[in-house]
Amino acid sequence: MAQNIFEYELIAEDGDARAGVFHTPHGEIPTPIFAPVGTQATVKSLTSRQLTELDAKLVLANTYHLYLRPGDDLVADMGGLHAFMAWNGPILTDSGGFQVFSLSDTRQIDEDGVTFKSHIDGSTHRFTPELSIRIQENLGADIMMAFDECAEPYDREYNCRSMERTHRWAERSQAAQSRQDQALFGIVQGGVFPDLREESARFIASLDFPGNAIGGLSVGETKPEMHAMIKVVNDVLPQGKPRYLMGVGTPRDLVECIGLGIDIFDCVLPTRLARHNAAMTDNGRMNMMNAQYAQDERPISATCTCYTCQTHSRAYIRHLIQSHEMLSGTLLSIHNIHTLLNLVARIRAAIIAGEYQAFARAYLAQLKA
Amino acid sequence: MAQNIFEYELIAEDGDARAGVFHTPHGEIPTPIFAPVGTQATVKSLTSRQLTELDAKLVLANTYHLYLRPGDDLVADMGGLHAFMAWNGPILTDSGGFQVFSLSDTRQIDEDGVTFKSHIDGSTHRFTPELSIRIQENLGADIMMAFDECAEPYDREYNCRSMERTHRWAERSQAAQSRQDQALFGIVQGGVFPDLREESARFIASLDFPGNAIGGLSVGETKPEMHAMIKVVNDVLPQGKPRYLMGVGTPRDLVECIGLGIDIFDCVLPTRLARHNAAMTDNGRMNMMNAQYAQDERPISATCTCYTCQTHSRAYIRHLIQSHEMLSGTLLSIHNIHTLLNLVARIRAAIIAGEYQAFARAYLAQLKA
Repeated sequence: MAQNIFEYELIAEDGDARAGVFHTPHGEIPTPIFAPVGTQATVKSLTSRQLTELDAKLVLANTYHLYLRPGDDLVADMGGLHAFMAWNGPILTDSGGFQVFSLSDTRQIDEDGVTFKSHIDGSTHRFTPELSIRIQENLGADIMMAFDECAEPYDREYNCRSMERTHRWAERSQAAQSRQDQALFGIVQGGVFPDLREESARFIASLDFPGNAIGGLSVGETKPEMHAMIKVVNDVLPQGKPRYLMGVGTPRDLVECIGLGIDIFDCVLPTRLARHNAAMTDNGRMNMMNAQYAQDERPISATCTCYTCQTHSRAYIRHLIQSHEMLSGTLLSIHNIHTLLNLVARIRAAIIAGEYQAFARAYLAQLKA
Repeated sequence: MAQNIFEYELIAEDGDARAGVFHTPHGEIPTPIFAPVGTQATVKSLTSRQLTELDAKLVLANTYHLYLRPGDDLVADMGGLHAFMAWNGPILTDSGGFQVFSLSDTRQIDEDGVTFKSHIDGSTHRFTPELSIRIQENLGADIMMAFDECAEPYDREYNCRSMERTHRWAERSQAAQSRQDQALFGIVQGGVFPDLREESARFIASLDFPGNAIGGLSVGETKPEMHAMIKVVNDVLPQGKPRYLMGVGTPRDLVECIGLGIDIFDCVLPTRLARHNAAMTDNGRMNMMNAQYAQDERPISATCTCYTCQTHSRAYIRHLIQSHEMLSGTLLSIHNIHTLLNLVARIRAAIIAGEYQAFARAYLAQLKA
């Protein structure tokens, strides 16, 4: 059964922060962990060898995009997503719900599912919980997500109805699952309303998924609201299963939300910032196009052990940007992903050492400086 | 002295084809060899680690581009081109002449040099043989090129005057050289005129450069004309020094021109084709965007040992192209450069085995098929 394959070992707790290991058919995921995003079966600009060299432990791919192009049946024919993208480590696919609501031109939601138009060619498609699961089974990721609606966070009445539908979709997603080598995670919704979040967490927890996610955050609400929602939800979600905060990934968010008991994160930020010439560091972001770096022989970060920092100067990276050379995106993606993977690894070590609070305090002070 | 550092060992001859080793301060270059082009101090889309994994033996960089951006003084301040681009193997820089004549908006040539406008911002600059050498000494490549004019190939009267000026510029380039750890190569010109080519080869050979190049070919003349010029020139150029055919690099050209005694080639073709979705193979080019590859699980080439072919299917590469993912350019650049490096390595082995003719015949037959 899925619960046996997908064991979550809790190794240490430090306040609400947790260190663990989540077992999957493609390897162990040490938690807390950050997952780089490979929307279209590629973490933008990186080869799978470069992902391996980065020691990435979990990669996310997007169901909506892969359903539209190249098509999940084609991916299945090619042996599934692991074979298709030549990434033999753990993969997580989202349900497609978030992209249907954020990317498609028009959409109509009803009890059964969502009808939407493709952002690529305007063609009409329909997702239901059952189809989302069938697509995700075709893709074959280690972790798949229940189909949900990510609602606008401040409309209480709408969030109430949407949450209840998301709960019914969670049950239907669970019922639709046929493969036992994939872990299906449930998703808690409820906008910025503590009572709805608590109710949603109780319901999702009752379905006994091998892991649980918090959706609908980092979508416009304030940080105090986000943190309050995470607290309410994590007080309810079971200790013995991983908790995944969807779509979140600044260094500050990682540090703070791990302190609130989150185990898994994903975000396009490191690769998107890379394509916009920004380097993520423990002291904040650097705009590598800045003229001050033109003759700077130092690496982006003196203490960073990534390939980029071990190999190239700030001056070289700025030159690539000025010269419109795509290698800048590759080098900055390597650096930014390394920065986040290194950060979660250090937080994990701090939790195991019982020093999470001291680490977080020092890190956040440095980040502000 | 440069001649001692830059020894060319002739290992085998098979007809006019030669196998050798050219020694440089950054390592041995087995010849015949193909040099990928890193115009702006980066072989487009590839990290220096990927170049190392490709076992590239020589990389070309462009003096014109690096002079304009980031500036050769800056590169010198950063420790030279090897340190700047983190490529510790042999590098060759051209003289800037070809780009001045092909890229800059307007130019005025006189006995002393060329005044031109930057293709980047329209600013006015002037190259002389002395400045070209100073820039190339700032860049610090293992091999640098005499400043020359690449003239339109069919105007006899102009080629005559231009060639004589190129000869005077070759002497001035030689006189301007101050560093002894760089090999300066002379360049033979003369358009499509056998007598001019012969005269140019005699003159350039008389200057006793550690290596000699043939310029002004593959610029619009026919293949028979190109081959005739190479024959005339190589009959004159010394056996004991490497011969570099500038800017040439289709598989057919490599096979045929090695048979005419060429040792070194460079071309943007493998990376440019990669960015235009084309894979180079022993059987010709494949347009990887073609719908026939949509569900093709095979690698680009069944026998290819490159990272791309060892890792990914045609279907995946087509998906990346369809999805506008820049990784397709990286994967195809790796494959195409490997294809040419593998080709020259096989030709070299055939020459050493005394089987060049059989190899060339079989290869060219396969290429046509």
